[in-house]
Amino acid sequence: MQIALLGGTGDIGEGLALRLARDTDHQVIVGSREAGKAEAAADEYEAALADRGHSDDIEAAENATAAADADVVVCSVPAYYLSDTIEAVADDLADTVLVSPAVGMQRDESGVGYNPPGVGSVTALAAAVAPDDVPVVGAFHNLAAARLSTLDADLDWDVPVVGDDAEAKATVSELTDDIDGLRALDAGGLDNASEVEAVTPLLINLAANNDGMHDLGVKFW
Amino acid sequence: MQIALLGGTGDIGEGLALRLARDTDHQVIVGSREAGKAEAAADEYEAALADRGHSDDIEAAENATAAADADVVVCSVPAYYLSDTIEAVADDLADTVLVSPAVGMQRDESGVGYNPPGVGSVTALAAAVAPDDVPVVGAFHNLAAARLSTLDADLDWDVPVVGDDAEAKATVSELTDDIDGLRALDAGGLDNASEVEAVTPLLINLAANNDGMHDLGVKFW
Repeated sequence: MQIALLGGTGDIGEGLALRLARDTDHQVIVGSREAGKAEAAADEYEAALADRGHSDDIEAAENATAAADADVVVCSVPAYYLSDTIEAVADDLADTVLVSPAVGMQRDESGVGYNPPGVGSVTALAAAVAPDDVPVVGAFHNLAAARLSTLDADLDWDVPVVGDDAEAKATVSELTDDIDGLRALDAGGLDNASEVEAVTPLLINLAANNDGMHDLGVKFW
Repeated sequence: MQIALLGGTGDIGEGLALRLARDTDHQVIVGSREAGKAEAAADEYEAALADRGHSDDIEAAENATAAADADVVVCSVPAYYLSDTIEAVADDLADTVLVSPAVGMQRDESGVGYNPPGVGSVTALAAAVAPDDVPVVGAFHNLAAARLSTLDADLDWDVPVVGDDAEAKATVSELTDDIDGLRALDAGGLDNASEVEAVTPLLINLAANNDGMHDLGVKFW
C-alpha cells in the first residue's frame, strides 16, 4: 500500500515514516504544506535508515499530491491544524482511508488535560470534516513521538483503533501490527474515540510526575 | 493502618479486601449499609483466604462505624451511590484519607462511554462532598474487579493516583504498592482525575471487542 503522512515532517509523522519504511513493505510518502520541506524530511529519514543499514525509499510531496497517491492517509498534524489540513486535501481523498492520531489537550497549572472539540473527540472532528465517502479511523493517539522516532528504541505498545467502517479499521489495524512492537486493538466505533484520546494527556502527566518515566505508551492486559 | 472499605461487600471492594488482607499488614474493615451483610462478606473473605492457607482477620461493621475506626476509607461503591455514602459517614471521617475508585460510565449501542458528573470527575465529586478537612485521593479506578477478587490471578497493573494533598497521596500510593502486582503512579492533582477515570470504559470496550481479552488493566511504560 501507499501510506501518505500529512504533516509527516515532524512529531508522530516522523516516527511513523521511519518505522513504516523500516518494518513494512508499504511505500511511505511524506507530505507537507511545502513540497520542499517534505523532500528534506524524506531525505533525512532515508539517511537515518541508511545509518542503520536499511535502504528504504521514502517519497515526498505536497500534502494534496501525497494524499491523491495514497491508499491510507494519516493526518499527523496537531489538532488545531486538523480541519484545515483535511479540507485542503478533501478533493484528493478518493478511495482512501483517513487516519486521525491527533488529540486535543490543554496545559494548566495542574498538568495537561484532555480538551476535545465540541463533536466529542478530534477523531470525530476528522470524520465530520472529511468527505462522506472517506472512512475515518482513529489510531496512533497514544504513541510517544520521541520514542517512536528513535529507531533504536524497542516498542511494546498497544494502539487502540476506533472507527465505524470495519474494512477501513481492519486495514489500519493490519498496518499497525506490521510495525514491530505495536499491537492494534479494537476500541470500538468513532463514539469511543474520546476515551482513547484521553489516555494521551494521562501519559504526559504520568511522565511529568514520576521519576524515571518518560515518553510513555500503554499496554492493556 | 486500619483500612475501611465502604461497600466492601462487592465489586472492587471484595478484591481490595482480599488482597490487602493477604498481601499487607494492614487491618481490613469491610463496611456495608447493613452490619450483617458486612459480617457475612468478611466471613466469606476469611474463608477464601483460609482455603489458600492464609489466616487473616477481616473485621466488619456498618459503614459509619467502619469509617470512624479507619486511617484510610475507600469508598468502593458505584458512582451513583457515592454522594449518599460519603454524606452518611461524613461525621465519622476525622483524621482519615478518603479514597475514591468509582467511575461514571454510560452504556449505549457503541459500547461504554465515560460519563463524568458536572464537577468533571467522580473523584472531584467525592472531594466536593467530603468534609473540607478530609483529603480525597483518587485510586484503583482501572482495576478489573473480577480479576482483582480472583486470588489465584497474578496482577501486573499500574494504579494512577490523583490528589491535591501530597501526604494523603503518598499514604495511598504506599498502600497500593503493598499489594502484590500493583504499582502506584502519580497522575497529578484532582483536576487530572477525569483522564484516569476515562481509562475504565476504554478497558471495558477493549475487552468487549478483542478476542481473548477480558478483565483488563493497564500498564504504562
